[in-house]
Amino acid sequence: MEKKRTILVGQSGGPTCAINASLAGVIAKARSEGAHVLGMRYGIEGLLKRRIVDLDEKVPTAQALKELALTPASYLGSCRYKLPDPAADEAPYQTLFGLFAELGVDAVFYIGGNDSMDTIAKLAAYGAEHKSPIRFVGVPKTIDNDLMGTDHTPGYGSAAKFVATAVGELARDASVYDLKSVLVVEIMGRDAGWLAASAALASSRELPTPDMILLPEAPQTLDAIAGKASELLETRNTVLIAASEGVRDVSGNLLCEAGSGAVAKDAFGHEVALSGTCRYLASELKSRLGVKARGVELSTLQRAATHCASKTDLDEAFSLGAAGIAAAFEGKTGIMCTIERVSSLPYRTKIGTIAISEVANAERTVPPEMIAADGMGVTDAFIRYARPLIEGAVHPFEVDGVPHRLPALDPGRC
Amino acid sequence: MEKKRTILVGQSGGPTCAINASLAGVIAKARSEGAHVLGMRYGIEGLLKRRIVDLDEKVPTAQALKELALTPASYLGSCRYKLPDPAADEAPYQTLFGLFAELGVDAVFYIGGNDSMDTIAKLAAYGAEHKSPIRFVGVPKTIDNDLMGTDHTPGYGSAAKFVATAVGELARDASVYDLKSVLVVEIMGRDAGWLAASAALASSRELPTPDMILLPEAPQTLDAIAGKASELLETRNTVLIAASEGVRDVSGNLLCEAGSGAVAKDAFGHEVALSGTCRYLASELKSRLGVKARGVELSTLQRAATHCASKTDLDEAFSLGAAGIAAAFEGKTGIMCTIERVSSLPYRTKIGTIAISEVANAERTVPPEMIAADGMGVTDAFIRYARPLIEGAVHPFEVDGVPHRLPALDPGRC
Repeated sequence: MEKKRTILVGQSGGPTCAINASLAGVIAKARSEGAHVLGMRYGIEGLLKRRIVDLDEKVPTAQALKELALTPASYLGSCRYKLPDPAADEAPYQTLFGLFAELGVDAVFYIGGNDSMDTIAKLAAYGAEHKSPIRFVGVPKTIDNDLMGTDHTPGYGSAAKFVATAVGELARDASVYDLKSVLVVEIMGRDAGWLAASAALASSRELPTPDMILLPEAPQTLDAIAGKASELLETRNTVLIAASEGVRDVSGNLLCEAGSGAVAKDAFGHEVALSGTCRYLASELKSRLGVKARGVELSTLQRAATHCASKTDLDEAFSLGAAGIAAAFEGKTGIMCTIERVSSLPYRTKIGTIAISEVANAERTVPPEMIAADGMGVTDAFIRYARPLIEGAVHPFEVDGVPHRLPALDPGRC
Repeated sequence: MEKKRTILVGQSGGPTCAINASLAGVIAKARSEGAHVLGMRYGIEGLLKRRIVDLDEKVPTAQALKELALTPASYLGSCRYKLPDPAADEAPYQTLFGLFAELGVDAVFYIGGNDSMDTIAKLAAYGAEHKSPIRFVGVPKTIDNDLMGTDHTPGYGSAAKFVATAVGELARDASVYDLKSVLVVEIMGRDAGWLAASAALASSRELPTPDMILLPEAPQTLDAIAGKASELLETRNTVLIAASEGVRDVSGNLLCEAGSGAVAKDAFGHEVALSGTCRYLASELKSRLGVKARGVELSTLQRAATHCASKTDLDEAFSLGAAGIAAAFEGKTGIMCTIERVSSLPYRTKIGTIAISEVANAERTVPPEMIAADGMGVTDAFIRYARPLIEGAVHPFEVDGVPHRLPALDPGRC
């Protein structure tokens, strides 16, 4: 009798609305191929501590898979652990490959962003060097949409849909009084402005908004920002500015630093917990323009608001997870699954793969042709690119007036 | 031929998800009675400047009425204008009653909260004193749920549904890493903790949350808050605290003041723009407990997120608007429409009226029997009271991936 294949799947980096849909895709496809599915609790970091869950037990039914796909955040838990260079420290690799052998793992799947692809790239390289038959496959996700080699990343469409929906609602809310005011909405995005740009999708004939979009890719002076706001306020009551948390001045300094001082760095050397851009801008514009000004941070809700997810996004996330299994079972390794756009109107895509070494540790930012000439908005090219990604609504089943989710793995200890 | 009746309707105070559903109810019922419907632009303040719109023209069809009911914020615009005591300054009353006569107004409807009911009370009293035949009717709305004389207020259910949904999603998001952390979610509510209390509706068998709820009605010491958080962190990774922006220490000082200094006051002498409670608490708990701590403000989104509205709430808001017209046309004046609860399980209510003098300028706070013994949570009595109010989802029709709304009255100038 042939040995039943075993796959191991983990999630890493910041959670998104779609990361569990990819996990559901991995589980569903693996199961349809007769494989046994294990999960890493808290990513590679948890795996190093032998934190493993049996997903055939935890997510046993088709119904549970559906609920999983509509559950926000990372069902398996996550980490921000960076594998060392094996030449400098081989110990974690020995632990991990020992564990893979012990569990009889045929393929490892890691659902994550840039840093997670670095992990998969290192494991694949180490495996290749040691003639391991184990396949290593990356499944992309990130609300930042900054991964190379794919048209876009799962998680982005849902976050963009929430941002566009929220900005549209905040715009109506901000314009109820007959007085001049500025609202600055702060949107996640450290170095790539894809998510801040998605605020432009709020615009409609009902109420054109936002009035300005500030992206990390287009540094600004406070004078230019205040100048444009002042000009707009001559003909309208409310100016809504959608500002990326990573927006910089022309010297390359983060605006939020002017507001809140020092910036911490994570294990990958990235600045973390940016915050203060909207407060700083609101405070500056208030004093420069003499108008009411308010800052609103969309905070972690923009990556967790599954109640406002994009159906297109969740469907693609699921498909990418399934495609990862198919690729591994065809013998591919050291790859990431990708979305290739066939056309925007009508929206059609196909799924591909790319060598992970080509995508790890590289970042894709908003290209100049999608940024308005004055650097404070987006072009139609961006709208054509992004609009299809937020199409379609997902309405979670409600129990007691709130969305029903798959129970957390360990609700009493979360 | 009998003269066609004319009614005038305005909106005032902070916008909510349900205030336009009440407006739709007023218009629909007035229209079914053959009346002509005028609207005040920017409430009484706009009316004093003769800012009047013809709602038979702006909202002409049944379809437009449906769209209006699903449009966030105040469609007519709002104000925070306080009418003076007529003994001190009669001028605005003379202007307003002159305008009512000129327009042939038979009845005036004001949809708003506490302060708006003060306006209706003064107009009704002035009208009665001057033998005016005009009827004055208040239609309640406020996310704060703090109006006297009614079981609850339209707007509260939808805000509560968004708070519960968001807190549930933030809780999943906050617990993905295997480390000790505190998340403080700041919720609107100056003196009444109804909305912060609604965070308790997020709790489910999938993930019990929040762990603590801080209300203005139950002052706390930082020691007590840190003590309970520390105790909870012994057995779990993440402590989620839902904190009202109006939470106070035992000396009666706002916690947010400790965080952000002076507090401004509005025309009614109320403290405004409270903010900083979550940042202050997160910063204190981080240093006292030595754990990661983050603050999230739900901001104005909690009153504007119509995409997550409660069907029960919007239906009741519509019915109260319609009931206001019915009451006025029966000759009632100086009243506010109310919701009376018949039973909680099954949820049944009826609509009544109350003399507005009994409700203006009084505030209803969360009663002791709904607050947990340690003051850091709610009881089952609160859950039984609040749960029915968030039941039922409303899914706005989407165009281009975002909810379709009734166009703003003056989209180019908003």
